[in-house]
Amino acid sequence: MEKTVKIGLLGCGTVGGGVIIVLNENKEEIAKKAGCNIEIKTVLVRDKTKLKPEITKYNIGCTDNLDDILNDPEIDIVVELIGRVHPAKEYIEAAINHGKSVVTANKDVLADYGKSLFNLAAEKKVDFQFEGAVGGGIPIIRPLRACLAANKISSIMGIINGTTNYMLTKMSEEGLSYAQALAEAQAKGYAESDPTADVEGIDAARKIAVLASLAFNTALTLKDVHVEGIDNIEACDIEYARDLGYVVKLLGIAKNDPENGITANVYPVMLPKSHPLASVNDVYNAIYVNGDAVGDAMFLGRGAGRLPTASAVCGDIIDTVRNLNNHACGRISGNLFEKKKMCPPEKEMAPCYFRLLVTDRPGVLAAIASTFAAQQMSIASVIQKNVMENGMAELVIITNKVSKLSIDLSLRTLQVLPVVKDVCSVLRVEDPNLP
Amino acid sequence: MEKTVKIGLLGCGTVGGGVIIVLNENKEEIAKKAGCNIEIKTVLVRDKTKLKPEITKYNIGCTDNLDDILNDPEIDIVVELIGRVHPAKEYIEAAINHGKSVVTANKDVLADYGKSLFNLAAEKKVDFQFEGAVGGGIPIIRPLRACLAANKISSIMGIINGTTNYMLTKMSEEGLSYAQALAEAQAKGYAESDPTADVEGIDAARKIAVLASLAFNTALTLKDVHVEGIDNIEACDIEYARDLGYVVKLLGIAKNDPENGITANVYPVMLPKSHPLASVNDVYNAIYVNGDAVGDAMFLGRGAGRLPTASAVCGDIIDTVRNLNNHACGRISGNLFEKKKMCPPEKEMAPCYFRLLVTDRPGVLAAIASTFAAQQMSIASVIQKNVMENGMAELVIITNKVSKLSIDLSLRTLQVLPVVKDVCSVLRVEDPNLP
Repeated sequence: MEKTVKIGLLGCGTVGGGVIIVLNENKEEIAKKAGCNIEIKTVLVRDKTKLKPEITKYNIGCTDNLDDILNDPEIDIVVELIGRVHPAKEYIEAAINHGKSVVTANKDVLADYGKSLFNLAAEKKVDFQFEGAVGGGIPIIRPLRACLAANKISSIMGIINGTTNYMLTKMSEEGLSYAQALAEAQAKGYAESDPTADVEGIDAARKIAVLASLAFNTALTLKDVHVEGIDNIEACDIEYARDLGYVVKLLGIAKNDPENGITANVYPVMLPKSHPLASVNDVYNAIYVNGDAVGDAMFLGRGAGRLPTASAVCGDIIDTVRNLNNHACGRISGNLFEKKKMCPPEKEMAPCYFRLLVTDRPGVLAAIASTFAAQQMSIASVIQKNVMENGMAELVIITNKVSKLSIDLSLRTLQVLPVVKDVCSVLRVEDPNLP
Repeated sequence: MEKTVKIGLLGCGTVGGGVIIVLNENKEEIAKKAGCNIEIKTVLVRDKTKLKPEITKYNIGCTDNLDDILNDPEIDIVVELIGRVHPAKEYIEAAINHGKSVVTANKDVLADYGKSLFNLAAEKKVDFQFEGAVGGGIPIIRPLRACLAANKISSIMGIINGTTNYMLTKMSEEGLSYAQALAEAQAKGYAESDPTADVEGIDAARKIAVLASLAFNTALTLKDVHVEGIDNIEACDIEYARDLGYVVKLLGIAKNDPENGITANVYPVMLPKSHPLASVNDVYNAIYVNGDAVGDAMFLGRGAGRLPTASAVCGDIIDTVRNLNNHACGRISGNLFEKKKMCPPEKEMAPCYFRLLVTDRPGVLAAIASTFAAQQMSIASVIQKNVMENGMAELVIITNKVSKLSIDLSLRTLQVLPVVKDVCSVLRVEDPNLP
């Protein structure tokens, strides 16, 4: 093939290196599918001397000056893989302003600036693609924007953080404590030395903001997502879950109720064992979508890692090349039509699990039950276990669907109730069988 | 929006009616996403008087003459949903020859004539899309052709027939016999009165031919697929599977071994319970793909039915409209580059399960084991159970990986061995732990 589309790559870390490897190792097949050759012409790096031999062997040009890429008329596509918000966002804007199509896997930029970048790309008639930003190698962005485009999506929920799913799997299957599971994830390289963004749910929150924006055609950002992490989950919560027929998963969950509005949450959830997401273990991710025509659909795969994410980025590159060759860049618009209303806390309903440390004496359950009754919270089941030597007992309560506001208000009362020593855990339950 | 793209719909049965409903009920959102209005102008039906009120209420034009659609310059897209090979294939060709883009959900036509239709569409520079042909509403065709395009796909396997998956689920979970499960599937409308194409695996074989063609970029047709159905599965096979840690699923499996060639099969398989496909039950379908970059990925959803299939067809319509609006029809080519070699039976390896009815006397196992040894088939495990009053016993043998040729040759010997009364079942085992 004679024609070649040339790429400028920003960043050559884990994923950037993976993109170089995939595009070179599968060069011939990719050229046939894309309709022309694809070549990485220039890589932007801070320090050229740090490039590894596995990369330098491909003889790619190197620069530490972004302008060398922006001002190169041979480069049609800029692939941004430096991560974090700044200066990645400014680099993406600069590339689009120079008339170049952009492929990125940067969820942070998308969660904060998605809409403005979509608008800029539309204005400049270039492609702006980001399949790798959510779910690593899992095809989910393009399916949402194309395959499922005829649907009204009512909910999208997923296991979209591999680190926490690995930890919860270890806690469930091997009985590890939170601290042990974290240490093992760090030892395996699945968790960073500062695991805050993963275990506190921020990483998942950015991803569910991106997914919900595309699913509901509105612009949600990180601050629209209510976030709770897994750092309060104890081994006994996972045991109680098992006794009750559930598993504990950290889910990003966004729902669009035409009447009450949009909800977007990241929190640990008790999920029935029979749910397809319940058996997604280790570092696997999966996204579960409900649409009015398709019904339920799920997408599963490796949510992170060098080659899986490179698979998604290279798929976007091939798609962009097809658009370039057909003079059709920008053929799929951002589709974030208007700001839709968010659901108020008194309308946001879900069943809820409470684990309380209480004084083991008559009348305790009555006091707690009347606290719940005062908030119109109906109780589905109660388990009392583990009476301790100090006269305390553990009380587990699962409610029927209750509002987020009721949960908050009941917690305020519970926390000052004399018989309640501690509110140890509060988890949502995603169980359609609870009324 | 002022601009409108108009559609000619061939056939107004279950799926055709669903397409009309989805395009009309979600009209406004679809117009925003597609960038213009989409309208079904004319429906081709054999008998206009048979259209139901749920369809006629949308005031769509009706004809029994294909030329009314082909010769209508206002119609840019023809949606073929009449099913079966003829005259659907001729209608699709006629539409393409008239310069119209085509959307179809017709696996029969694709499995037999995919390559020639891809070539014709490329020549005429129109779109030819078929997301609904495999897996109903599940996004799998576009993910294969775009999201995963940078991968060398090594295997694609799936539960791609809802009828048989429903039956096997009932047999597994409720202990129904094959006949009972079939009767229940027919009562629920999941199986046709003549269930041959489903239970004998022909429907799944057409679908795996389409999937394998796209995954491996070659043209496979129905006759390239080795097909076995579920009509010989007995309740006891499912029980033995459970005892051994497996479930029985009817899978379409295609693999591409660069050295030995391509294999394409549909047969009932024993699958480890921990495999993601093992928990896909009832009428759900799922497709499991392995690529060199993405690793393992799975796509799950409703594999048939009015609205799920309409979801896929309407997604294709929206995508085609985007291409029309950007003058970019034909932007993704068929990609069936060349005929690749098929794997010969002596190189096609899989572990295998045999259930034999044998005489219960000393030396039987020795005779059978030496038959296997003569074919270089190594035995992984043996179970002897159910000694019957008539002096017969059931013998279950699982082998390590053995060639298809060895299986065939050993069967010839087993069938004439005096101690073997009957070879009741032969099933492949898809277990990476067996050497």
